[in-house]
Amino acid sequence: MMIKSPRFINRNILRGTIYVSVAVFAAACSQKKENSQEVTSKATDELQNLVQYVDPMIGTAKMGHTYPGATAPFGSVQLSPDTDTIPYEIDGHYNPDVYKYCAGYQYDDATIVGFSHTHFSGTGHSDLGDFLIMPTTGNLQLNPGTETNPDSGYRSRFSHKNEHAEAGYYSVQLEDYNIKAELTATTRVGMHQYTFPKSEASHIILDLTSGIYNYKEKNVWTFVRVENDTLVTGYRQTNGWARTRKVYFAMAFSKPIAKYGQENHNDNVYKGFWRKFDQSTNFPEMAGENIKTYFDFNTSEGEKVKIKFAISPVSTEGAINNMKVEIPHWDFEKVKQETQNNWNVELNKVQLDPINHDEMINFYTAMYHAFLGPTIYMDVDGKYRGLDMNIHQAENFTNYTSFSLWDTYRALHPLFNVLQPKRNSDMINSMVAHYNQSVHGMLPVWSHYANENWCMIGYHSVSVIADAIVKGNTGFDAEAALMASVHTAKVPYYDGLKYYMEKGYVPEDKNGSSVSKTLEYAYDDWAIAQAAKKLGKDAIYNEFSKRAENYKNVYDAKSGFMRPKLNDGTFKKDFDPLNTHGQGFIEGNSWNYSLYVPHAPKTMIEMMGGKETFSQHLDSLFSMDLPDKYFENTEDISREGIIGNYVHGNEPSHHVVYLYNWTDTPWKSQDKIRMILKAMYQPKADGLGGNDDFGQMSAWYIFSTLGFYPVAPGSDVYALGSPAMKSATLNLENGNKFKVIVENQSEENVFVDKVLLNGKELKQPFIKHSDIEKGGELNFHMSNSPNKTLYK
Amino acid sequence: MMIKSPRFINRNILRGTIYVSVAVFAAACSQKKENSQEVTSKATDELQNLVQYVDPMIGTAKMGHTYPGATAPFGSVQLSPDTDTIPYEIDGHYNPDVYKYCAGYQYDDATIVGFSHTHFSGTGHSDLGDFLIMPTTGNLQLNPGTETNPDSGYRSRFSHKNEHAEAGYYSVQLEDYNIKAELTATTRVGMHQYTFPKSEASHIILDLTSGIYNYKEKNVWTFVRVENDTLVTGYRQTNGWARTRKVYFAMAFSKPIAKYGQENHNDNVYKGFWRKFDQSTNFPEMAGENIKTYFDFNTSEGEKVKIKFAISPVSTEGAINNMKVEIPHWDFEKVKQETQNNWNVELNKVQLDPINHDEMINFYTAMYHAFLGPTIYMDVDGKYRGLDMNIHQAENFTNYTSFSLWDTYRALHPLFNVLQPKRNSDMINSMVAHYNQSVHGMLPVWSHYANENWCMIGYHSVSVIADAIVKGNTGFDAEAALMASVHTAKVPYYDGLKYYMEKGYVPEDKNGSSVSKTLEYAYDDWAIAQAAKKLGKDAIYNEFSKRAENYKNVYDAKSGFMRPKLNDGTFKKDFDPLNTHGQGFIEGNSWNYSLYVPHAPKTMIEMMGGKETFSQHLDSLFSMDLPDKYFENTEDISREGIIGNYVHGNEPSHHVVYLYNWTDTPWKSQDKIRMILKAMYQPKADGLGGNDDFGQMSAWYIFSTLGFYPVAPGSDVYALGSPAMKSATLNLENGNKFKVIVENQSEENVFVDKVLLNGKELKQPFIKHSDIEKGGELNFHMSNSPNKTLYK
Repeated sequence: MMIKSPRFINRNILRGTIYVSVAVFAAACSQKKENSQEVTSKATDELQNLVQYVDPMIGTAKMGHTYPGATAPFGSVQLSPDTDTIPYEIDGHYNPDVYKYCAGYQYDDATIVGFSHTHFSGTGHSDLGDFLIMPTTGNLQLNPGTETNPDSGYRSRFSHKNEHAEAGYYSVQLEDYNIKAELTATTRVGMHQYTFPKSEASHIILDLTSGIYNYKEKNVWTFVRVENDTLVTGYRQTNGWARTRKVYFAMAFSKPIAKYGQENHNDNVYKGFWRKFDQSTNFPEMAGENIKTYFDFNTSEGEKVKIKFAISPVSTEGAINNMKVEIPHWDFEKVKQETQNNWNVELNKVQLDPINHDEMINFYTAMYHAFLGPTIYMDVDGKYRGLDMNIHQAENFTNYTSFSLWDTYRALHPLFNVLQPKRNSDMINSMVAHYNQSVHGMLPVWSHYANENWCMIGYHSVSVIADAIVKGNTGFDAEAALMASVHTAKVPYYDGLKYYMEKGYVPEDKNGSSVSKTLEYAYDDWAIAQAAKKLGKDAIYNEFSKRAENYKNVYDAKSGFMRPKLNDGTFKKDFDPLNTHGQGFIEGNSWNYSLYVPHAPKTMIEMMGGKETFSQHLDSLFSMDLPDKYFENTEDISREGIIGNYVHGNEPSHHVVYLYNWTDTPWKSQDKIRMILKAMYQPKADGLGGNDDFGQMSAWYIFSTLGFYPVAPGSDVYALGSPAMKSATLNLENGNKFKVIVENQSEENVFVDKVLLNGKELKQPFIKHSDIEKGGELNFHMSNSPNKTLYK
Repeated sequence: MMIKSPRFINRNILRGTIYVSVAVFAAACSQKKENSQEVTSKATDELQNLVQYVDPMIGTAKMGHTYPGATAPFGSVQLSPDTDTIPYEIDGHYNPDVYKYCAGYQYDDATIVGFSHTHFSGTGHSDLGDFLIMPTTGNLQLNPGTETNPDSGYRSRFSHKNEHAEAGYYSVQLEDYNIKAELTATTRVGMHQYTFPKSEASHIILDLTSGIYNYKEKNVWTFVRVENDTLVTGYRQTNGWARTRKVYFAMAFSKPIAKYGQENHNDNVYKGFWRKFDQSTNFPEMAGENIKTYFDFNTSEGEKVKIKFAISPVSTEGAINNMKVEIPHWDFEKVKQETQNNWNVELNKVQLDPINHDEMINFYTAMYHAFLGPTIYMDVDGKYRGLDMNIHQAENFTNYTSFSLWDTYRALHPLFNVLQPKRNSDMINSMVAHYNQSVHGMLPVWSHYANENWCMIGYHSVSVIADAIVKGNTGFDAEAALMASVHTAKVPYYDGLKYYMEKGYVPEDKNGSSVSKTLEYAYDDWAIAQAAKKLGKDAIYNEFSKRAENYKNVYDAKSGFMRPKLNDGTFKKDFDPLNTHGQGFIEGNSWNYSLYVPHAPKTMIEMMGGKETFSQHLDSLFSMDLPDKYFENTEDISREGIIGNYVHGNEPSHHVVYLYNWTDTPWKSQDKIRMILKAMYQPKADGLGGNDDFGQMSAWYIFSTLGFYPVAPGSDVYALGSPAMKSATLNLENGNKFKVIVENQSEENVFVDKVLLNGKELKQPFIKHSDIEKGGELNFHMSNSPNKTLYK
């Protein structure tokens, strides 16, 4: 009863808390009042300069798939350099090189193509890269050119020596043009500052044909209007990972355009009576599939040409309004300062005393990456585009998009329940809005700019919802969210669900990756059951508790692994538990996925031979020597992303090291956690062991560094590990502080000798969410050798 | 001063008039109150059943380009059969056959492909044909098939015997399926009623790939959602005559869909994770460039399946709302009755006593054609899409689109100033809104579903505006409209205008069709001057009066014709005044266009040798024998559309016959007008002498039948002709009646012996607009021989 529709009450309480207590941070919360719903940060008594520890370059090499550019916390705009333009297909075949460019930038590249306004962070598939802008001088070139011959196009050489990335700020010297490029951003507006040399031929190129994952004919339509000599508007409509995506923009220049024009190679576009115009130069209306535009200026030596570039999911009118509200001036430094202040507010939600400096870099960069998304997806007036393509008004919530849920339900949303409960509630409000707009009656699988891209498996929105309900973070209509979860879990045509509901498992001969699906559905069903229990919905609890046991149906006692079962009830023959391909699993092999019963580790362990056997089984996961052949054709992870056969670079194993807590050997988890933290997260461009996956990898780092982890979101219990810092203060939105204090900490002292919660020694390797919410102190005492009688 | 911003005052006065005086026509004005802005008709004392005289089949053969389907007055929906699916290009070349299908239907065709919801009436280029629906039985076929082999597709044979068209209603027996199809429509909703045979395989096909002028890759994107088992929504986005056009729909079925599916050949559409679904059957979400959908039902013998199909320029939400407001029930007969009542209200604006029955058919079909467009372009809540692609709210006016202005400024909008002043004011409000949204700062040339298609030449919005201002019909901000006119007339990059402004003519070597442009700009400039004069704007009056004389710059006294001049000031050599191609003219030859100085006939006549010479010159126009070679490559008109070298089938000559009024031989116009009326307008499918051009041809017929014609819109003067009826009562919106009574009228008595206005004999062949507005009586006395001293 307590939980029934508490949305508005909770919200007001939260708001009250924020705005009453932020006196010392007036400067930090300096975004406009109109925009205040996005600044929900609880300020701490003392705002440390933590932005200095964020290094956006981390993860920009190899498989991290992060971007180095400028963005505000959870910002709609991610204004970042793109270093190559990779076609999705070559001669009709998938071009594997495209994968490197999920975030548009690869650290090893020598040239920058330009700066585009939208980027996913850390994803393992991609899209976006909308509205590429490049400043140049001299001969106008409207093609990007190639990395091997940059002079053949508008791209420029650059050097990391002259490149600088901070949270909310990026700069680079464009060597070919002697232009200094600087970028910053508010939530919905990117701001560019280009310091030009003296030139009578200075150009700003806006290339609407550029994009990430540029599938053939990805551009469905583009539309540009030069409204006056300082304002340009338009939109880009694409078909790709998001099937029907449209982003609108408004671009303002700090000085009048001297001349402008377009290149418009639209062979399939009807020309009609438009032929009567010379549309190439100074013609203010442009439309077609493939438009490149340029804007010319005369510049004096050192002259700064600035651009404000606002985006909107709704309309060019919305974009113009976003610009007016968020940056009503031309002070680049002010925007940078305000955005960095906003970042400091977010980063100060955890104040850390590290073991070493690198850890500060790792930790706050992880915090930064964790707070990049989901991204805000509505105009300052609360309007946004829905899944039905209609324009909706967000009533009393902030609408978010880009839910990479197969990744983020595991640790990122649980982290938000600790550090960003208000935003997490609004993310759930956004999910429920998506559900209400969905013609399938489904919560998001991968919500993507008013589209569902259906990426990966499961229906993990229900986990995010259940976790919030169970933890009492219900700034949303909990019953409606539960009903949406139940509905979603019963859509028969979704990905083998009909079979799953009929047979208790997905038959591999009917629907591939069947074991992964069965296991994840079973977990999701358990999560629904937990939410139902909390809300007193017994029938739902019983129904979904039963479904939650379906993991048992794919366990093959003979092999000791989860194994694909066929429609006739027999297990698949020719089974290789180490192979990730064609074995009934996705993004993992049976060895790893067989450990995926996060909601019933005790039963799973019994099923798999009992605690002792299981503990040794886990040991071998980390120590075995995985033959190279199993890496061939494995996407998403570097060789470095693997320890033995433990694949940290991909998500299905993220809870695994904590499973020791359900054996009699919890200490075995501790050195391994510290090892993973060291091996998989390093403060350098190629420092991430795999895709950051929109913050999931970073959330794992944050939780594990703090000493606890949510093994089964939907439970209010965290499993303890081995904290990797000296102390941390969690500044909660409710005003409470939860401190984790680590004694006798060092690089070597990775084992936990003793744990006290508010002075009382713990006899179980678990704490509850309410222990954190209430505020208090968790004390770890460390040692360089395992305490094998700990928690006994 | 009187005219300054009188919009709201005038409107309220008009509204008051309407709603106070309509007591007897409550039934006629039966559209919803929400929708009332579209029912502005002044009711007469007695509503005659004039719908019975409307024959929508007239003009559906050959070059009339009218459609026979169902529509409401000025309705957004034109639900009409399409008889073939013609590709715009064959092997990369323009397919001339497409021209026949501007309105989707050709009378001589033997098969119907289906019924689509949007059609232009009478245009000489085309687009639309959105959302083709076809009911079938038996084997499901999703391609239309060919006329030669109709069994190869979903099309059906039909016979005119079993086809019936009325204003607001159409029915046909689809022989191949034994289905009776019936169509009716409100402003924004088409209603279908299909009487099926008994069948377990009854289908309703919705083919989103179908369209008129189906340019290659015309479909930019289509989107369909099956919201529930009776409601489907979506949109179609095209690139064609309108460059960036989007129409939304909501389709409701009277009985639940048993099964549905799609054919979706979208090779260039990214499939991604959508592959995980079987999207072919019962999958509620469809998107791509080329979607065909079907909806299956079991039907009993004689079962009626009904469809309500609403469209919206804004959103599917808007379409659903339009449907709810306009047809909140399933009573097909009621919709038909209400729409036909609305037609009767419009048709009764002129009550005619004819010479013969055919004339009733011709006249009321002309009235019907004249009131088909411009079409209403906004949702019931006043929202519409603007030229900037943003959604706008029409504040206190009804927004219209589809302004075929090069045609309709001549007689249609002047006719509206007599019979539809409220609508004409709102059309001007729509033009000014277009201007405000135009990035060019231009009034519409051819306003087309939130697009400018730039078809034809001139800037004739200014004529429509000036005509309304001069005639005192200013339910719009007259000063703003004048300033928009001035702005429009000075856009230098528009179609030779820079040269025209610099040199006083468009040089043929710089911009083709230069003489036509020079002449039409000069006329338009005169119109601006007249509006300025009325509003007391002397500077504008002087400036544009001077520009209005530019016609003199292209007159070649030596040849006696208007002749293309080159940039160096010399006339073009190798000049053939009879050829319509490559001679500096468009849709007319020099012979006809040389008479195009409607605003200064007196000066023109002097320039061309004086009254007597000119009168003989005109005679030869009608009597000369035009060699066949001049018909080759002539679009738009039948051989029948020409009398001598007088081309009634195209617009530039429409005022020509009335020019005799400025000579000493006004009687020469009289028999010719009667001849043109007879020759060019006949009550049969191929009865129109050329494209109806969205009512312009019909407006000529209406004016000329009534006995007067607006030679120069922007003047308040009408030239008298020879009325072709016995009497007519014009029921004006201001409540006044203007009667034209013709004595001694007969088929032979085509000459006017005497004219009296309110009992007073006229000494000039002219009346003023105020003479009509005030109400009164115009009496013609006819004779079978010319009265050569008339008007002397």
